[in-house]
Amino acid sequence: MSVYSIAVDLGGTNLRIAAVSDDGKLLEKLTTGTEVQKGRDFVIREMTDAIRSLMLKYRTAGELAGIGIGVPGFIDIETGIIARSPNLPDWANFPVREEIERLLQTKVILENDANAAAMGEKWLGAGRNTDDMAMYTLGTGVGGGIILGGRIFHGMSGMAGELGHYTVEPEGHPCGCGSHGCLEQYASATAIVRMTREAIESGNAPDLSDLARGNVEFTSRSVYQLAIQNHPSAQKIYQRVGRALGIAVGGMVNALNLPMYVIGGGASSAWDAFAPSMFEELKVRSLIYGLTAPDRTGPEQKHTTVTIALMGSDAGLYGAARLPMLASAGQSEAARSTAR
Amino acid sequence: MSVYSIAVDLGGTNLRIAAVSDDGKLLEKLTTGTEVQKGRDFVIREMTDAIRSLMLKYRTAGELAGIGIGVPGFIDIETGIIARSPNLPDWANFPVREEIERLLQTKVILENDANAAAMGEKWLGAGRNTDDMAMYTLGTGVGGGIILGGRIFHGMSGMAGELGHYTVEPEGHPCGCGSHGCLEQYASATAIVRMTREAIESGNAPDLSDLARGNVEFTSRSVYQLAIQNHPSAQKIYQRVGRALGIAVGGMVNALNLPMYVIGGGASSAWDAFAPSMFEELKVRSLIYGLTAPDRTGPEQKHTTVTIALMGSDAGLYGAARLPMLASAGQSEAARSTAR
Repeated sequence: MSVYSIAVDLGGTNLRIAAVSDDGKLLEKLTTGTEVQKGRDFVIREMTDAIRSLMLKYRTAGELAGIGIGVPGFIDIETGIIARSPNLPDWANFPVREEIERLLQTKVILENDANAAAMGEKWLGAGRNTDDMAMYTLGTGVGGGIILGGRIFHGMSGMAGELGHYTVEPEGHPCGCGSHGCLEQYASATAIVRMTREAIESGNAPDLSDLARGNVEFTSRSVYQLAIQNHPSAQKIYQRVGRALGIAVGGMVNALNLPMYVIGGGASSAWDAFAPSMFEELKVRSLIYGLTAPDRTGPEQKHTTVTIALMGSDAGLYGAARLPMLASAGQSEAARSTAR
Repeated sequence: MSVYSIAVDLGGTNLRIAAVSDDGKLLEKLTTGTEVQKGRDFVIREMTDAIRSLMLKYRTAGELAGIGIGVPGFIDIETGIIARSPNLPDWANFPVREEIERLLQTKVILENDANAAAMGEKWLGAGRNTDDMAMYTLGTGVGGGIILGGRIFHGMSGMAGELGHYTVEPEGHPCGCGSHGCLEQYASATAIVRMTREAIESGNAPDLSDLARGNVEFTSRSVYQLAIQNHPSAQKIYQRVGRALGIAVGGMVNALNLPMYVIGGGASSAWDAFAPSMFEELKVRSLIYGLTAPDRTGPEQKHTTVTIALMGSDAGLYGAARLPMLASAGQSEAARSTAR
């Protein structure tokens, strides 16, 4: 091993810290609960302690490219300040990057967690053979990230890629962002549980109600189990997930005409329950998808691929590790290469 | 004048051909009706005849950078083939660029008309001080174009920027693209006329019905006149236009976090009738817009600007003229500059 990074995935529930080599090997991973309620300074101290222990351990094993940290929220990429984070309210407008750099005396790259996940899938996962892709992360919320030319597309201030707040139902369920009917309200794990509860309360889902009286815990996973066991109400819920994804992905196919759209995050493991309705909707919503669908053939036909992520819950960790490597590679690249 | 281009804007109703110098001066413009019904070969002959006459006239005045042609439809940018064009049905799958190059023995750049309009606004209009913007063209349909790094963003095959087919009402009015409730069904000139007719037929728009019995011709422009004269039903129609734009632009602000979104095309002249509801909706639909709105201040605050286009109906013509200039500049640029 010659070069490695230390990556941090600061989730709402878990804090995960890993050392990753530049050939994509996970050297070590530490996982602790994120005790958000103990406040920002506590979490930062815990994080920097763990980073220091890994830095010390791998000190002689290779050269440290840097530290990449994926955090949920809207990040101003130039200043390294979290502009807003629903899961980390007391971190807003705090110069996180500067503070961690000061504590560790090392270069730190701060990145939105879903952007980091997109980079992880691009580096080692579903997108490893493309330089242009968008990724949807279906977790507690729905995150997104866009990769163009092999790099995270940041937009003006680092906030690009918020694909979870695409409106799929203008008058739909209220969203934490202040809007209504965002994709996140139909395709996140949280939304799946809410839609199940709503179905039971409506009285129109006797199959779910029967099970609700039993001891089944309603998580997106248990509803998925019911869906693949042909419970119609559970299937209907995943059809709504698929439909919402089809509308949102279709809009991005129309806007960006990228070769690949990757669906990841915990709830993406229910792929076979939502994918059929997603593809059905996608063909309706996007003429470009229709013109470039994998079943279209032609001499020089380029295809739009919509596929499941491959890196599981570690996508963000690998992506965060990749960032310092690209930053240092970028410097030497710039010196020798020419503009496209 | 040292360098000039010949630009073509092949619309559904007009064929416009112009010579434009590289400092953005219109040297001459020819306008004829597009006699689409006379078939592809007729239109191509008319176009190439006009181009030849301009080439001859300006032969000694400067160096011809090339010919840029904006056409409506989905264009495969590498092959120069129109994959599909609702307004030019017999042009589909025809190698237009190759044919015109053969007839003129000159390099031709074929581009989607809305992409060309975006380039025109970027070069000389609302976007002249930015390198990253998206443009919506509200005409018979709603076209779109995305400029990144000063160049048209094409995506995988040249079809990127179809912002008019963003779903704003999942169960809404059927669209020619095969979907329902596309932006185009609420914000095009065609849609404004349709919504006016629907309002009259519903019996809930007595003010419009009264006028309908008179001799007012219902165009998007006459409905606009009624709206600014405070006719509530006409105002309501433009509020729907604004709302649809707010949802669609909001989604793109969330996805791309660009500094500028430009609203152009004929129907954009009704800006003051639809802009208030557009901005209202935009603030609801996009947290990023809220975080970067022009009324937010801060030491390094970057703003999202949503604004009206400045180049009128000539945007596409100027943009098409710009393309051959950029292509030849790109070659010399590539030789000296380094990757960012």
